[in-house]
Amino acid sequence: MEKKIIGIIGGMGPLATADLFQKIVLHTKATSDQEHLHILIDNNTDIPDRTAAILRGGEDPLPQMVKSAQWLEAGGAGCLIMPCNTAHYYHARLQSQVRVPVLHMIELTCRAMADRGITRAGLLATTGTIQSGIYQEVFRRSGVSLLTPEEGEQEAVMGLIYDGVKAGRAAYDTAPVLRAVRRLFDEGAEVMILGCTELPLAVRLYGMDFPAVDPTLELAKGAIRFAGGEAR
Amino acid sequence: MEKKIIGIIGGMGPLATADLFQKIVLHTKATSDQEHLHILIDNNTDIPDRTAAILRGGEDPLPQMVKSAQWLEAGGAGCLIMPCNTAHYYHARLQSQVRVPVLHMIELTCRAMADRGITRAGLLATTGTIQSGIYQEVFRRSGVSLLTPEEGEQEAVMGLIYDGVKAGRAAYDTAPVLRAVRRLFDEGAEVMILGCTELPLAVRLYGMDFPAVDPTLELAKGAIRFAGGEAR
Repeated sequence: MEKKIIGIIGGMGPLATADLFQKIVLHTKATSDQEHLHILIDNNTDIPDRTAAILRGGEDPLPQMVKSAQWLEAGGAGCLIMPCNTAHYYHARLQSQVRVPVLHMIELTCRAMADRGITRAGLLATTGTIQSGIYQEVFRRSGVSLLTPEEGEQEAVMGLIYDGVKAGRAAYDTAPVLRAVRRLFDEGAEVMILGCTELPLAVRLYGMDFPAVDPTLELAKGAIRFAGGEAR
Repeated sequence: MEKKIIGIIGGMGPLATADLFQKIVLHTKATSDQEHLHILIDNNTDIPDRTAAILRGGEDPLPQMVKSAQWLEAGGAGCLIMPCNTAHYYHARLQSQVRVPVLHMIELTCRAMADRGITRAGLLATTGTIQSGIYQEVFRRSGVSLLTPEEGEQEAVMGLIYDGVKAGRAAYDTAPVLRAVRRLFDEGAEVMILGCTELPLAVRLYGMDFPAVDPTLELAKGAIRFAGGEAR
């Protein structure tokens, strides 16, 4: 089978883009450079902040997302992926501007969790992702119910994402987030969804340890399979 | 100052490409997605093996390298970089096919070492890199002399690169390479040059620990400065 080229609409954020790229490479079954998948990346840091656009009427990120998507498609990409949960708020409008499929990170994550028999999960994500309802909409059709942080807890999650990872801090006080996580487990969550692509980085960077689902990894594996590779 | 877009001719190898990308992001002084540099990557795994071409008359990698370079240039890249030491054997021929500068990883490394006052270094690299003489040619003009592994030692280095990192092995016996490294230090080397972009990965992956210079990091910092960013 002829393998497809994977196109990554990146820059949302840059470290998350590098993380997705690395996860595709590490999880592709290959024993030489040439057996790996061909991947095109536009780490487009001109894409405005998604949460600011959804919640506060900030600059619309869609035009820059479409620009990257069409450039990647013209370059031969057979599918497109984007390592930003919040950006999936624009998924349908983005999909309408390109012919190749834009694989849906949240749908892939939902399917993987349902397959594992998970019925109740905590959602850690940006306020933009949570208030836009994109996770709730996808998960409504599945057997997995979602628990979200309360207001003060949500501020702690946003601090971890923006003042921790996106600001490039090597150390960050994770205690407030860990308290929120503990409460969500107490409420019956079986696992936490790391529903912002900076969170798998935060977990590793700041040494946080709890049962978690990583949508970046589910997206990486989905893209490998779609492109005709074998995921490991 | 208007920032330039960095283009990465990748796939040589894929993990090294992800490593270079991540090093650019981690070493760019930025506190939000939008302050980071715009980067285009072609992880082109259709580029044939460089060492096989140089030593054994294998398929010429230059046409695919030029294809990636010209595509990145057409996409707006203001400079090009490639995370493969051996590929620099083709640097002049590649440079003649594009208008934007192809930053030279080995020259950047040599300059950084001379600036640090290093006078004697061990070179760990593929047999293709060593036999092509690209390091020796660049370093001849500097005050840094190079020591290279003996034949059996060189086979151990190649094993680490090809049967370890490129084959995606999570564990690998590093003792033969470490014996070679010890001998090079005994001969007066002050530092080892990790002169294959898989070697910084091998060092981290297999927990090897000795004074080393990482050309991928020097290239990342050189690209950040060229693009108008601030390296940290």
